[in-house]
Amino acid sequence: MEAAVTNGVKKKCLNLVNGAFSKRWNKITEMNGVPCDVLSIEWDKAIKADMVEEKLETGEYDAVTLVFNETSTGLMNPLEEIANVVKNYPDVLFFVDAVSAMAGVKIEVDKLGIDMCLAGVQKCFSLPSGITVASVSERLLKRAEEVEKRSYYFNLPLIYKYHLKNQTRVTPAISQIFALNAQMDFILEKEGLENRFARHERMAHIVQNWARKYFDIYPEKGYESKTLTCIKNTRGISVKELNEELAKHYVRISNGYGELKEKTFRIAHMGDTQVQDIYGLLSLIEEILDL
Amino acid sequence: MEAAVTNGVKKKCLNLVNGAFSKRWNKITEMNGVPCDVLSIEWDKAIKADMVEEKLETGEYDAVTLVFNETSTGLMNPLEEIANVVKNYPDVLFFVDAVSAMAGVKIEVDKLGIDMCLAGVQKCFSLPSGITVASVSERLLKRAEEVEKRSYYFNLPLIYKYHLKNQTRVTPAISQIFALNAQMDFILEKEGLENRFARHERMAHIVQNWARKYFDIYPEKGYESKTLTCIKNTRGISVKELNEELAKHYVRISNGYGELKEKTFRIAHMGDTQVQDIYGLLSLIEEILDL
Repeated sequence: MEAAVTNGVKKKCLNLVNGAFSKRWNKITEMNGVPCDVLSIEWDKAIKADMVEEKLETGEYDAVTLVFNETSTGLMNPLEEIANVVKNYPDVLFFVDAVSAMAGVKIEVDKLGIDMCLAGVQKCFSLPSGITVASVSERLLKRAEEVEKRSYYFNLPLIYKYHLKNQTRVTPAISQIFALNAQMDFILEKEGLENRFARHERMAHIVQNWARKYFDIYPEKGYESKTLTCIKNTRGISVKELNEELAKHYVRISNGYGELKEKTFRIAHMGDTQVQDIYGLLSLIEEILDL
Repeated sequence: MEAAVTNGVKKKCLNLVNGAFSKRWNKITEMNGVPCDVLSIEWDKAIKADMVEEKLETGEYDAVTLVFNETSTGLMNPLEEIANVVKNYPDVLFFVDAVSAMAGVKIEVDKLGIDMCLAGVQKCFSLPSGITVASVSERLLKRAEEVEKRSYYFNLPLIYKYHLKNQTRVTPAISQIFALNAQMDFILEKEGLENRFARHERMAHIVQNWARKYFDIYPEKGYESKTLTCIKNTRGISVKELNEELAKHYVRISNGYGELKEKTFRIAHMGDTQVQDIYGLLSLIEEILDL
């Protein structure tokens, strides 16, 4: 996130904000002294393409940041529609945080014109945390050469220079790279990408039907995430106590993020989690809550 | 290294350079747009306290960077003597790269007045790479509040704010933190710090006596590192071929770094390596080279 805004903005960055992580990207942009404006909406609403269009029409911006899948709210912004708007502005670079989506949901980086698409490996890749993966476009690399250098660590042209020699500019987290390599073999050769995406879709469907039956869903209809569901706590249960019971069975769900604590709770259905894990978890919750 | 210079310099930084990594610290300082000068000497010579004094006397600097143990040259700079000079300038912060020394050699951070002492865990800690550890002084934290903020990722006051809650500002490399915790138990409770330091000293003694007998040592006398020895290839052996032979026995040494390739080679004697490993390696090299 920091590499995108420090390497890719010459004029001004537009930070699209509807959750904790998109808000953080705005903070990262500001703290690095990169000129930016924020387009901020309610956290249960999706960023719509026409909102983005309205801002880009001003001609003030040369970069946009979007968190595709907000882990804090279980909301999936309409990536393709927003991408189609950004494409109309050839000087505007498009940075997408796909932390909790990449490897779980199809993202056609080149087709969508995404200049940086980044993710942590601890979400849909199902790996130990410690490294970030990102695609970087040629035009972002070119832009980076034109902006004032702000960092050695986050210097994309420098990273690329070493990458061409199959090297890294500093000693990386080697064990995580080996783990990623092994997992990529599994994803691409054993499970298959399309099967993986279909499994995520199916798990989302199961959890969201269940959530509508017993509770309600936090984000507006049509923008529910395929990788985690944020459920409105309409029954006023104690999420903390529910988690304590679940812990006895060696599973757990997430409480709501920040101010959404106890008002919502989140069920992850991503990574190597299987459909039967989801069925089992939901049945266990029904039993504990006597639903 | 980047966090030190971006958080800790208001006026100008003095980068002490006598090897590849101290040279990199200067590059990092420059690339971040932090005002700096370099004091650069031959790589086989140690930075002496009076050289530092002469620069600090100008009153131009409010920070100094020193690589205590240059992994590229096997040279250990006289940390205590330099620290005693820096101490006379209360406004000058002292940043020490102890990447290949910490946990192998005693470094009394508070006594020496070191404001940041940093290390990777893949050297003397004997752990998988992926995290950096660093001590940060209260006056560095205070200085950081006074400089223009340049980063979210490397923001020391922000890191400290989360640290007080036993948290991290972003998802860290969790498996490495667990590994570090386990290894610290071993170092502090099983081996004992003083025993660990003594073992490093003993291994250095063995390797350096051997090196003087059959070759010569690259750094000037009295400044040989306690954790790795950089040997002058006075016999004109092929280091590459030696390493190929060693690889058949599942061990290896390092070729010289950068321009010192084939002119020198390096034997590491750090981390969990034991005295008998060193004896074994040296005997094997003698056999291969028919010494």
